[in-house]
Amino acid sequence: MSINLAFKALSDPTRRKILDLLRERDLTAGEIADHFQMTKPSISHHLSLLKQADLVWDERQGQHIYYSLHTTVFQDLMKWIIPFQHNGTERNEAE
Amino acid sequence: MSINLAFKALSDPTRRKILDLLRERDLTAGEIADHFQMTKPSISHHLSLLKQADLVWDERQGQHIYYSLHTTVFQDLMKWIIPFQHNGTERNEAE
Repeated sequence: MSINLAFKALSDPTRRKILDLLRERDLTAGEIADHFQMTKPSISHHLSLLKQADLVWDERQGQHIYYSLHTTVFQDLMKWIIPFQHNGTERNEAE
Repeated sequence: MSINLAFKALSDPTRRKILDLLRERDLTAGEIADHFQMTKPSISHHLSLLKQADLVWDERQGQHIYYSLHTTVFQDLMKWIIPFQHNGTERNEAE
């Protein structure tokens, strides 16, 4: 299930930072790697998990492969989380 | 980081179903276990991960420990996801 993979992918701070970078613009793996003190294979692994979770897409543009955000899955996650923002049961206890 | 644990906790469908059940009302571990074909220790393990992620709280009421939703962390997750709902870069390509 894609929602499982998506939540799993978001549980890692490096992957969340990659997504943050992609909010600005589409980037190649090399451009992404420049933002991290990490080997390129490590970054590739993170990108692969983000792709599996359908949170990012890759697309060849000339000589380069560009990664971009795929916003649909984020919308699905939002729809799942929204009902939990407010608790259905009224609570009177001090929290 | 709590947000890492929270996303990790949400990546499992059993744990998401437990959270769904707790939207209705606070429940004991036994009441939760009744909804699953799973051993009580397995359910306890899932509850423990949900507690570590601060997505649920437990509270003793008389002889029983009741689990309840802790909505604050869901709000934090929402705040993180919201900016990703719409892609900053305009796309003209057919998707």
